[in-house]
Amino acid sequence: MKKLHGAALVGQSGGPTAAINATLSGVILGALENRAAITKLYGMRNGIEGFLEEKMVDLYGLFENTEGEVCRDKLDLLCQTPAAALGSCRKKLPDPGADPAFYERLLELFQKYDIRYFFYIGGNDSMDTVAKLTAYLQTTDYEMRVMGVPKTIDNDLAGTDHTPGFGSAAKYIATTVSEIIRDCAVYTVPAVTIVEIMGRDAGWLAASAGLPALMDRPAPDYIYLPEVPFSMDAFLEDVQCALARHPNVVVAVSEGVRDAQGRYAGEGTQSGAADVFGHRYLSGTGKALEMAVKEKIGCKVRSVELNISQRCGAHIQSATDIRESVDVGIHAVQAAVSGKTGCMMAMERAAGEYRISFVPKEISHIANAVRSVPVEMIVPEKNNVTKACLEYIFPLIQGECIQEYIDGLPAHFIIE
Amino acid sequence: MKKLHGAALVGQSGGPTAAINATLSGVILGALENRAAITKLYGMRNGIEGFLEEKMVDLYGLFENTEGEVCRDKLDLLCQTPAAALGSCRKKLPDPGADPAFYERLLELFQKYDIRYFFYIGGNDSMDTVAKLTAYLQTTDYEMRVMGVPKTIDNDLAGTDHTPGFGSAAKYIATTVSEIIRDCAVYTVPAVTIVEIMGRDAGWLAASAGLPALMDRPAPDYIYLPEVPFSMDAFLEDVQCALARHPNVVVAVSEGVRDAQGRYAGEGTQSGAADVFGHRYLSGTGKALEMAVKEKIGCKVRSVELNISQRCGAHIQSATDIRESVDVGIHAVQAAVSGKTGCMMAMERAAGEYRISFVPKEISHIANAVRSVPVEMIVPEKNNVTKACLEYIFPLIQGECIQEYIDGLPAHFIIE
Repeated sequence: MKKLHGAALVGQSGGPTAAINATLSGVILGALENRAAITKLYGMRNGIEGFLEEKMVDLYGLFENTEGEVCRDKLDLLCQTPAAALGSCRKKLPDPGADPAFYERLLELFQKYDIRYFFYIGGNDSMDTVAKLTAYLQTTDYEMRVMGVPKTIDNDLAGTDHTPGFGSAAKYIATTVSEIIRDCAVYTVPAVTIVEIMGRDAGWLAASAGLPALMDRPAPDYIYLPEVPFSMDAFLEDVQCALARHPNVVVAVSEGVRDAQGRYAGEGTQSGAADVFGHRYLSGTGKALEMAVKEKIGCKVRSVELNISQRCGAHIQSATDIRESVDVGIHAVQAAVSGKTGCMMAMERAAGEYRISFVPKEISHIANAVRSVPVEMIVPEKNNVTKACLEYIFPLIQGECIQEYIDGLPAHFIIE
Repeated sequence: MKKLHGAALVGQSGGPTAAINATLSGVILGALENRAAITKLYGMRNGIEGFLEEKMVDLYGLFENTEGEVCRDKLDLLCQTPAAALGSCRKKLPDPGADPAFYERLLELFQKYDIRYFFYIGGNDSMDTVAKLTAYLQTTDYEMRVMGVPKTIDNDLAGTDHTPGFGSAAKYIATTVSEIIRDCAVYTVPAVTIVEIMGRDAGWLAASAGLPALMDRPAPDYIYLPEVPFSMDAFLEDVQCALARHPNVVVAVSEGVRDAQGRYAGEGTQSGAADVFGHRYLSGTGKALEMAVKEKIGCKVRSVELNISQRCGAHIQSATDIRESVDVGIHAVQAAVSGKTGCMMAMERAAGEYRISFVPKEISHIANAVRSVPVEMIVPEKNNVTKACLEYIFPLIQGECIQEYIDGLPAHFIIE
């Protein structure tokens, strides 16, 4: 294996999570362990966008003290800080063939800073960036190793058992829904509570709301996922059935549910705006269901949108998720140093007792594929997930992180 | 002091909080410590409503083992369980003069079960119940001691420095807003995030969103309270000013803000979109502000409603709040046993270092009064709270509870 010496560049991209900074900390640790190869570690501010403006942070400088020792306390704080400490972006890279000037500018910068390692922590769109960069580099003689490091609360990346960040979001959702169920149980008046959960195309997050059922605790009566067609009539029938059984009905619904014609349940109430990747902004799915219940059933009804707290609720991180999020960063660096490029560092689950191994997967097999909840994990009535689905998620929420609080609030590490 | 022997009755009423079960646990502990006087402890299911149907739980039976020892582990679990373990109600009692039959029925039940102590844990409406019951009992020769035990996340009860439950809600809000601020900081595109916080008439909860500022951490740019008139124009000007300073503007707003004419900010505002049935609907306060920003400023904008999680988010209880919530229950029982009646157990804060003492206050001075954020605690521009306001709230969120988790989720104690 050829040794490659030079600087490394790391960036965070896409939506915030409670674990993406843990992965950044893993990349920093991995780089420090490989200082012979990685002479310098730049953090790009706001992903590739900031790098194009040469906005970078010297991460060795930030996380080593003057004696050259790793500042473990700072890295621990970084791990418990939500969102992306380096900032993020939603830049879609042009096709290498369509805009050669764009890539030449990138190459120029790589050469200027002698960047030989490129780590991009993100979800589907970020893996698209990794794939395009890899493809472009193959047309040049510049040697740089490019690694995607997975991150997304949506758990929808292909090629990996699950994604860092998902476990903490799932723990937040299962905990919050458990608390909402207790809140709803206090009155005897029939009432329906609809909890809207993130997930445009993949229902993994909504499925997590069902976890309490696996522990014989009260769980939502129904869970609706975007993977199967949503019918408002069937939903209203479900609610009627549940109301016949008990007065406090709680339902979890993925923001992305849509009918057989592909129309989003919340479509009447949304802005219709699309982002740069062509994704439509969704909001108001819970509201739409709330209004349907009010109109057709007429009982007390409320909708609760968990909103961005489910992705940035770092105060209730899953210890398993955070450990894996750090490890995936370390493994990505190790793989790159030992010669890998054009890969995403994936996680594979062993059969039997929960155990994860880290395996680099070729990025071309991963980028722009979406891993949805398989239909076998959804009950035939399309209004809940199976026990097997919950058993798959269960190990990912295990363990609590011991966090540092200052003056009553969880401490955050801010990169200025 | 005359000794009074007999059974005690305890109930929970009004909206759920993360600490009302801690107070129930305090009442149970207080009663067990006074078994000579309190021979039996009934928990009413769903407050006074359930008691009228004789729905009660034997709490000694539930929290003592067969050897007559207190089940500390169960009480600890009860303390970390959100909402009202006994269930709640929103029953407003009739005036004793207007409906004597109602009170005769109550008296009959008190006599039937030999109820000599009555503890009602709740907020303003519950203290109204305590006041009416006290007034009625004075017209009879039945001896029963009646104590109100304060609870409300709104912190709006008169006669007490603060209310149990507020500290945990404030900690949840300050933590969540801190996380939302981190989440919003990742992009460079100008964006406004509006966080809607509970509080129809009192702005204490919204004020808590400002706590990070006291710790030199990023805090909301502005906080709008219901205590002062809200002007949409002034709000939009504020937002413009903030956008001129930095791209990520975060604003906290109390759900109850209203203009000088008393119109709620959300009132009369339509979403501009029809629901699935073609109906237009009234939006929430945060949504109304979001739409105003979208229309008048035109930048990226989002609203986040913290919703019921802020009152049932027990996984991030304040240790100070929980300790006080238990203590207020114990003190209420002790005061009743030593002869007090017709009182609410209030908390008084000593000058200097934070220290609380428990003092019974006559219920007639407390019921139906609302303690709002005083105008001196609001900045002259009416768009934030003062440092003194934050310093008042600060001690109430201090300390974290060590909670029991089972299978990755906070354990709850459910009274079947």
